[in-house]
Amino acid sequence: MKKISLIHGPNLNLTGSREPGIYGRDTLDAINDEVIRKCEQYGWQCVAFQSNSEGALIDRIQQAIDDCDGIIINAGAYTHYSYAIRDAITSTRLPCIEVHMSNVHAREEFRHYSTISAVCAGVIAGFGKNSYLLAVDALKGILG
Amino acid sequence: MKKISLIHGPNLNLTGSREPGIYGRDTLDAINDEVIRKCEQYGWQCVAFQSNSEGALIDRIQQAIDDCDGIIINAGAYTHYSYAIRDAITSTRLPCIEVHMSNVHAREEFRHYSTISAVCAGVIAGFGKNSYLLAVDALKGILG
Amino acid sequence: MKKISLIHGPNLNLTGSREPGIYGRDTLDAINDEVIRKCEQYGWQCVAFQSNSEGALIDRIQQAIDDCDGIIINAGAYTHYSYAIRDAITSTRLPCIEVHMSNVHAREEFRHYSTISAVCAGVIAGFGKNSYLLAVDALKGILG
Amino acid sequence: MKKISLIHGPNLNLTGSREPGIYGRDTLDAINDEVIRKCEQYGWQCVAFQSNSEGALIDRIQQAIDDCDGIIINAGAYTHYSYAIRDAITSTRLPCIEVHMSNVHAREEFRHYSTISAVCAGVIAGFGKNSYLLAVDALKGILG
Amino acid sequence: MKKISLIHGPNLNLTGSREPGIYGRDTLDAINDEVIRKCEQYGWQCVAFQSNSEGALIDRIQQAIDDCDGIIINAGAYTHYSYAIRDAITSTRLPCIEVHMSNVHAREEFRHYSTISAVCAGVIAGFGKNSYLLAVDALKGILG
Amino acid sequence: MKKISLIHGPNLNLTGSREPGIYGRDTLDAINDEVIRKCEQYGWQCVAFQSNSEGALIDRIQQAIDDCDGIIINAGAYTHYSYAIRDAITSTRLPCIEVHMSNVHAREEFRHYSTISAVCAGVIAGFGKNSYLLAVDALKGILG
Amino acid sequence: MKKISLIHGPNLNLTGSREPGIYGRDTLDAINDEVIRKCEQYGWQCVAFQSNSEGALIDRIQQAIDDCDGIIINAGAYTHYSYAIRDAITSTRLPCIEVHMSNVHAREEFRHYSTISAVCAGVIAGFGKNSYLLAVDALKGILG
Amino acid sequence: MKKISLIHGPNLNLTGSREPGIYGRDTLDAINDEVIRKCEQYGWQCVAFQSNSEGALIDRIQQAIDDCDGIIINAGAYTHYSYAIRDAITSTRLPCIEVHMSNVHAREEFRHYSTISAVCAGVIAGFGKNSYLLAVDALKGILG
Amino acid sequence: MKKISLIHGPNLNLTGSREPGIYGRDTLDAINDEVIRKCEQYGWQCVAFQSNSEGALIDRIQQAIDDCDGIIINAGAYTHYSYAIRDAITSTRLPCIEVHMSNVHAREEFRHYSTISAVCAGVIAGFGKNSYLLAVDALKGILG
Amino acid sequence: MKKISLIHGPNLNLTGSREPGIYGRDTLDAINDEVIRKCEQYGWQCVAFQSNSEGALIDRIQQAIDDCDGIIINAGAYTHYSYAIRDAITSTRLPCIEVHMSNVHAREEFRHYSTISAVCAGVIAGFGKNSYLLAVDALKGILG
Amino acid sequence: MKKISLIHGPNLNLTGSREPGIYGRDTLDAINDEVIRKCEQYGWQCVAFQSNSEGALIDRIQQAIDDCDGIIINAGAYTHYSYAIRDAITSTRLPCIEVHMSNVHAREEFRHYSTISAVCAGVIAGFGKNSYLLAVDALKGILG
Amino acid sequence: MKKISLIHGPNLNLTGSREPGIYGRDTLDAINDEVIRKCEQYGWQCVAFQSNSEGALIDRIQQAIDDCDGIIINAGAYTHYSYAIRDAITSTRLPCIEVHMSNVHAREEFRHYSTISAVCAGVIAGFGKNSYLLAVDALKGILG
Repeated sequence: MKKISLIHGPNLNLTGSREPGIYGRDTLDAINDEVIRKCEQYGWQCVAFQSNSEGALIDRIQQAIDDCDGIIINAGAYTHYSYAIRDAITSTRLPCIEVHMSNVHAREEFRHYSTISAVCAGVIAGFGKNSYLLAVDALKGILG
Repeated sequence: MKKISLIHGPNLNLTGSREPGIYGRDTLDAINDEVIRKCEQYGWQCVAFQSNSEGALIDRIQQAIDDCDGIIINAGAYTHYSYAIRDAITSTRLPCIEVHMSNVHAREEFRHYSTISAVCAGVIAGFGKNSYLLAVDALKGILG
Repeated sequence: MKKISLIHGPNLNLTGSREPGIYGRDTLDAINDEVIRKCEQYGWQCVAFQSNSEGALIDRIQQAIDDCDGIIINAGAYTHYSYAIRDAITSTRLPCIEVHMSNVHAREEFRHYSTISAVCAGVIAGFGKNSYLLAVDALKGILG
Repeated sequence: MKKISLIHGPNLNLTGSREPGIYGRDTLDAINDEVIRKCEQYGWQCVAFQSNSEGALIDRIQQAIDDCDGIIINAGAYTHYSYAIRDAITSTRLPCIEVHMSNVHAREEFRHYSTISAVCAGVIAGFGKNSYLLAVDALKGILG
Repeated sequence: MKKISLIHGPNLNLTGSREPGIYGRDTLDAINDEVIRKCEQYGWQCVAFQSNSEGALIDRIQQAIDDCDGIIINAGAYTHYSYAIRDAITSTRLPCIEVHMSNVHAREEFRHYSTISAVCAGVIAGFGKNSYLLAVDALKGILG
Repeated sequence: MKKISLIHGPNLNLTGSREPGIYGRDTLDAINDEVIRKCEQYGWQCVAFQSNSEGALIDRIQQAIDDCDGIIINAGAYTHYSYAIRDAITSTRLPCIEVHMSNVHAREEFRHYSTISAVCAGVIAGFGKNSYLLAVDALKGILG
Repeated sequence: MKKISLIHGPNLNLTGSREPGIYGRDTLDAINDEVIRKCEQYGWQCVAFQSNSEGALIDRIQQAIDDCDGIIINAGAYTHYSYAIRDAITSTRLPCIEVHMSNVHAREEFRHYSTISAVCAGVIAGFGKNSYLLAVDALKGILG
Repeated sequence: MKKISLIHGPNLNLTGSREPGIYGRDTLDAINDEVIRKCEQYGWQCVAFQSNSEGALIDRIQQAIDDCDGIIINAGAYTHYSYAIRDAITSTRLPCIEVHMSNVHAREEFRHYSTISAVCAGVIAGFGKNSYLLAVDALKGILG
Repeated sequence: MKKISLIHGPNLNLTGSREPGIYGRDTLDAINDEVIRKCEQYGWQCVAFQSNSEGALIDRIQQAIDDCDGIIINAGAYTHYSYAIRDAITSTRLPCIEVHMSNVHAREEFRHYSTISAVCAGVIAGFGKNSYLLAVDALKGILG
Repeated sequence: MKKISLIHGPNLNLTGSREPGIYGRDTLDAINDEVIRKCEQYGWQCVAFQSNSEGALIDRIQQAIDDCDGIIINAGAYTHYSYAIRDAITSTRLPCIEVHMSNVHAREEFRHYSTISAVCAGVIAGFGKNSYLLAVDALKGILG
Repeated sequence: MKKISLIHGPNLNLTGSREPGIYGRDTLDAINDEVIRKCEQYGWQCVAFQSNSEGALIDRIQQAIDDCDGIIINAGAYTHYSYAIRDAITSTRLPCIEVHMSNVHAREEFRHYSTISAVCAGVIAGFGKNSYLLAVDALKGILG
Repeated sequence: MKKISLIHGPNLNLTGSREPGIYGRDTLDAINDEVIRKCEQYGWQCVAFQSNSEGALIDRIQQAIDDCDGIIINAGAYTHYSYAIRDAITSTRLPCIEVHMSNVHAREEFRHYSTISAVCAGVIAGFGKNSYLLAVDALKGILG
């Protein structure tokens, strides 16, 4: 039975209650539930985690080394400057899918660069909560 | 019955026979068949097109204005400099999904910038032929 | 009797039916008719051409070498990266007027640079279809 | 009866007597007269002004707020760095036509950027004194 | 009764004991006391917080969503690269005043850019502890 | 009795009558009156000055050398390119407060750089006319 | 018997009749004849092709995959921005010689960068029609 | 008896078990033991600390103010963007040695810039675990 | 009898009374007297002028067209951004010597670029008031 | 009888014994012999020279002024920063061919810029020792 | 018995007599003696060399190919632009330690980039003469 | 009796015989004689030196430490990249005058930056051989 680590970065705990125009009206818990159910359909276990702390996110990514088969991460604004998260992802040697709910390329200039894209398997951006569900399918394609 | 335009840019006609390390071993015809079948599962019609010519690609994108509900495009290397293709996409006012089989962010510097990301609904990159199939699901999320 | 080549680049075939806020409500045919009539008032012949293909536009520009006295060109998005069109204009050694219907300087950053301005006689931008008519007058000033 | 403010920036008082290769042989007074006569043909009043002083040019632009319907401005070298003139133009909320006698894009690098293009209705450059006359026609298209 | 969240970023806990030439001789506690007293004069409650942790600062900013009317923040060195703090401020939709004790523009190049200025109501920099007191007055002007 | 020089740069004479969304509805005279009254409360004399001319502003700044104790300046658009005003401020060796009514960091890119910040005591931006009143308090903190 | 594909990009059809100062007085046909004869001396077949169309050039480069042993290409102005032509060259896995008749490094800044140099075997520039003949010799050194 | 603070940043807890090609096969504990023993040879006490959290690292650096004589720090990926760690180092006014096990200059571009080099006494990079031992000797040279 | 125009830009009226470390202790009047006397030794007439106004400086430069044989100019801070003064110098077609009392290359970054160097005969910087006297000798070498 | 100066820059004395993957297995002496023989076939004399010293290379280039008809130079790494060698080449007013054995455009970024290309007749790069032999033919085309 | 080449670049011959604040008071001879003695403790022979000439330094580095086991180099200011020295180091295929007595990262901007870091085993900077002694230990770690 | 070191960099030995349009028709010997005579008028001894070698120039600059009172240097093209010459000048702690015969600011872009201006007393450029004579006078002003 495969295990997936679903990791959300800073301010994503507010998803659903804030800025629905960008992030939709589903809460993070609701999104996590949908992702977990989709993983269960593939016979996978998925555990979700959110933190505003860069260090806590790195800790979590490192945990995946020992007991996970893949990572789905929306690193929030850390995407754009955290080379420490990039190094953590590299160290896992696991397939990692970078996810964004909004189309980061259609927003501010600083959101166009990602430190982690180059060390992830692939990127999915712009489809709201659906970005996460597509990432599960993308992982399925990789993990078989 | 919804209609999807699937558009492939320059050199993608060689998919499968060339550089399988990057693009996989499926031919473009095989990939198109899979995408078309997946669309049929949603009750959609999908018509595929490939050209090495920027002008022909623009012509094709414009055709979608009158008879399509969505576009899936892998603009190949034109992704990185063709503002004319960007303008064509904008003019359709249709949801357009930008697709790349390879993870463009892990390749040469010039492949990190896309002229079209900002005018597409979203971006999916890095999952081989699966990127196209995920794009169909992404469109499904948008078109309902 | 002088002959003018009026050349329109990519996506301008959609003028009038799309994005009237930027490009106005006149179709390209209607605009061409007005320009042709204005040329006739000066005793000139004007032949209009539109293509989405960079190569076809270069072919057309080269044709002007043998039988035209001046060129009016709106190269659309090719304006911003086609050095091949620039070279074609240079090769004609004819007075060429660069035209834009919208004020390109008030739009996206990538529209602020033109490959062809430096090899044209002058530039007229921002006046909708009137930009073309002003270009005829500008050519009149040059050709006498 | 519409009123147009015709404003010339630094060193343009020397037009005609200096650098005829770039600016032609007509004096600024002669050019002003032609522009005024053309305006009169439209039933408009045109008042011309030249100053080498950035502050005086701003004062003049502000005067247009109360009694003018449009502005034609050749801001000379201030075009390339005077954000104060840009702010003055913005404050008038009048249609303003940016004019250059020479093709600034074919000259030194520093002449390729204009602070005011983005807040003007449009730009006309490269046609000698004719640039001013075309600007009158461009304003006619806007003011009706 | 309005409530203000006063937030200090990394290394500001050392204020008063270290580098008095830049930050003055008052401790952070003393500064907080002054700010709290000034708020009380306006009938406001002010609660102060300091952390060296980016995540803890984001947590605190998010807390303001539910029970505060305004934020005064000196994000310390995070000012210059933390887009996560910027996103947190944006998510509160509260008026936020960016404060710096030193004149950051007269110090190292990297201190000249702030990620948060564009999403704050305004900026006050260079007046030592007084910068905080002026920020209270600035908030007074906004909150009435 | 201390004397303060209050200096306003280009286009600020239009304050109140133009662009109230950015600059508020108070006229410059009304703002000056408020600042002068606030200074009087501190027992200070304040004299206000506005000019659209860079040279006149420099002249005024230099006058402060002999008979003023501090300067409050909103240099308008000159803020972004006038190194001559910067040099004038430096030459006074007086405490100078840089003021902006709008939050310049949330506006166009060219407004993000200030030539004078590095030679001023501090900066206050974003609080409408209140920015000036806060500057008086900031000067009070410096002059005692 | 080895087969060489000789490919000329945009505007090179005008060689000989236009701008002899830069490109010499030989027509493209005359140059092609010389190259073909030189190839025949090595017992090679050489087929020449010219197009102004980026897409047609890519089509031609791809054709070389099946029946050619080497490519000599002067991509004209496409050299400076066509990443699609670069990808086509890469896909052939054939030795390709980049040729320019003029010394591109002594001309405009935009001609100093080539998208294709890094994927070609080598570069020969500046020797007029002789550049092509030298390229045949260079290929001889590679193909033996 | 002198006291040294040995501080390791994000992902360095994985040293030895991950990426031995870059970081060697010794675990962080083993490295710490060697450094501590070397310090003991100089009659010094050395206390080691590792955290993935930027805030926790800053806390630790600040602790050194009161009871340490020198710092040896490998800030991991925070080296490249944490100005908060730089400020913490500056605030200690202690000699600090920047250490990297790998030769950062021979790796990705983003690893070539260090926020902390300019506020450290010196830098040692590229010698695996030996970099730490050399840093002890370097501190010995400074502390005597 | 040759006539020289000696022109001083913004803030140079303060020379001698302010910042003697940079500009020396001689007043501008004293410096002018020395330059005038030196010119008289060559049988030349020299007239000095100072203004803080860019427009007034341009006016003065233009006056030289009719009655001067050479210009010596210290454009102060306008040196670094006034393209209008550059154009004025160009329009005179007179030999112009750019002078700086301080070594501008050893000061702030913004003082390293001069708009006028490229249109002056030569540059002399760094020798205090002596820079002006050397400029007279330099003009002597040019005018004979 | 024409005389050619063949000049090799720094580290090229190691050719053949070092890095055969890049530079081939022929020693510099062997290459020189081949070039000299090829020149003799044209009835030319060729004298070869190698130095690691920039000054010695400049001396050698200058010697060509008096007794050579053309120069073939591989300036090694000096190619990328020696403007002094560029000036020396310019001063000879002789046709100079820039040669590189490797394809510099496919190597490190710093090897993409050449100080001398713009003052050479042409460039040949990427063909190993054959680059030199092609340069002889290129010179033959120029010298006749 | 291992042999080490100790190489000093331009102006380092002045060490000890000049700028003791940066380089200390030991002469280069004294430093060389210390390094040689330390090498002798390891049973190594060390030969020192200094030159102001880039070519002579390259000659010396090349000599190491045949008879040395490692290199310690302080390339002085050549560090920042000599790609020829970089190539020489690469050609030796020996472990090379880059040394700086001062902390180059805390000095002028141009000293922050090193051409040679990427081809050296490691870098030691900032510890005065001790940097050299640490480099011997670093080499010991590599050579065993 | 004061002693002046007059130092000429690469290619300046060709002065007079080459490129008289830029450098005049006087040979370097003739210029040296004039400078020496002018020094003798001030009771100074002047010794001239020219080399194409950067190392030899540095050696010469260092010699000035012991027996010269001032340096006049035209570093030729080394001006634009030799930080080693800059360091040598700094090490002398003597007043050094940077001289250029041509107006480097009116020539190629790469000639606009000088490594040595910031460490010289002043700069004189653009006056042909007279630049050297003016430099003697400039040194006279400094040495008294």
